[in-house]
Amino acid sequence: MSPTASASVIERRVLSVDTQRPVEFVDITPLLSQAVRAAGLLTGLTMVQTRHTTTGVLINENEPLLLTDLEAFFARVATAAGGYAHDDFCRRTVNLTPHERTNGSAHCRAALLRTSECVAVVNGALDLGRWQRVFLVEFDGGQRREVSVTLMGER
Amino acid sequence: MSPTASASVIERRVLSVDTQRPVEFVDITPLLSQAVRAAGLLTGLTMVQTRHTTTGVLINENEPLLLTDLEAFFARVATAAGGYAHDDFCRRTVNLTPHERTNGSAHCRAALLRTSECVAVVNGALDLGRWQRVFLVEFDGGQRREVSVTLMGER
Amino acid sequence: MSPTASASVIERRVLSVDTQRPVEFVDITPLLSQAVRAAGLLTGLTMVQTRHTTTGVLINENEPLLLTDLEAFFARVATAAGGYAHDDFCRRTVNLTPHERTNGSAHCRAALLRTSECVAVVNGALDLGRWQRVFLVEFDGGQRREVSVTLMGER
Repeated sequence: MSPTASASVIERRVLSVDTQRPVEFVDITPLLSQAVRAAGLLTGLTMVQTRHTTTGVLINENEPLLLTDLEAFFARVATAAGGYAHDDFCRRTVNLTPHERTNGSAHCRAALLRTSECVAVVNGALDLGRWQRVFLVEFDGGQRREVSVTLMGER
Repeated sequence: MSPTASASVIERRVLSVDTQRPVEFVDITPLLSQAVRAAGLLTGLTMVQTRHTTTGVLINENEPLLLTDLEAFFARVATAAGGYAHDDFCRRTVNLTPHERTNGSAHCRAALLRTSECVAVVNGALDLGRWQRVFLVEFDGGQRREVSVTLMGER
Repeated sequence: MSPTASASVIERRVLSVDTQRPVEFVDITPLLSQAVRAAGLLTGLTMVQTRHTTTGVLINENEPLLLTDLEAFFARVATAAGGYAHDDFCRRTVNLTPHERTNGSAHCRAALLRTSECVAVVNGALDLGRWQRVFLVEFDGGQRREVSVTLMGER
């Protein structure tokens, strides 16, 4: 019937990322491009969602010195130095795990980034600008992290 | 014909939230889960959009002490203490209402959050990580607020 | 067959915006509304994505004094005064162009905003709240900028 209806795509994939350092910018663009190709998506969008509360999704430039600037910037805005009630295990009673991390500052930094970003898909490829790369930003690593990718559109 | 085409879902719902305090983190996850179930959405995405300019959508952990940390953090980054031209009703001539609120700092805080976030839907449920909850963050309450929810995908 | 399947819409448009000043809030709401109408989209969502790493998408109020507040706020949080390794062209070796701009602070400010935002479409119009407008925020202008708009839903 309709040429679009018969070719609609809705797929979800999970990317696994192992971070190594406390703060780390992991360029996941190649993994996303691969997911778009594997789904055969031609036109539509890719929704990228981290499944964690001390990480964020950021689309910016992959220039190593800039990444050090961004790391210093987030550290300046949300200092790691004390004062987070979330890290006061004498007072805290909720969501406590056996090996609880002191990560109040990581939550605040993550709150400045996004849990999800969308990127258009055009002609079977991510429609990123010349300098744009998609990062999972780790603020409380190293840990195994999951990124949920939803692909919607047409084949 | 296509198994996906005949089951496509596009639904929009409006959630109403009454905030009580000037700054408040309202966990709207149960309302969103209910919307996903009511729409019968199995696979796809949920787009959550606040309809206000002094609130934001945040996905993070619902731990009460962390919420006090986040409140203090946003207050520190965008202080409520004077200096906002938006609040100078002697100079301002645009968008003035009879009972205008002094909320320049609330706009700045909201600008650090997002107006919209997307969450994947997998097997009929929101695909949130273990600690992830979706909040409407109020920076200029108490007020009646509206959250627009768009559900897209397949039944 | 299904009434929705035969009317599905997936369209992508590129908006061109010429910024004039180093920092500028460009209200692109009229261009987006026009794109929704041109696509004939009745129900669904509009995904707005900047294609640059020193700009951001922001949904907030178009009140001129507030825009000066927001500009001052972002300048305060990420000062333009020195200290960005990205701007140290003696050390930097990656992504260098002939007329490289010193824009480390612009990248940091952009990182506080979003690359993409979604707005619901209801009854053929953007479902924005009373004070909501969609801005492309320029932090390193003037330049020619592109905004990618993806429209998904039903006619």
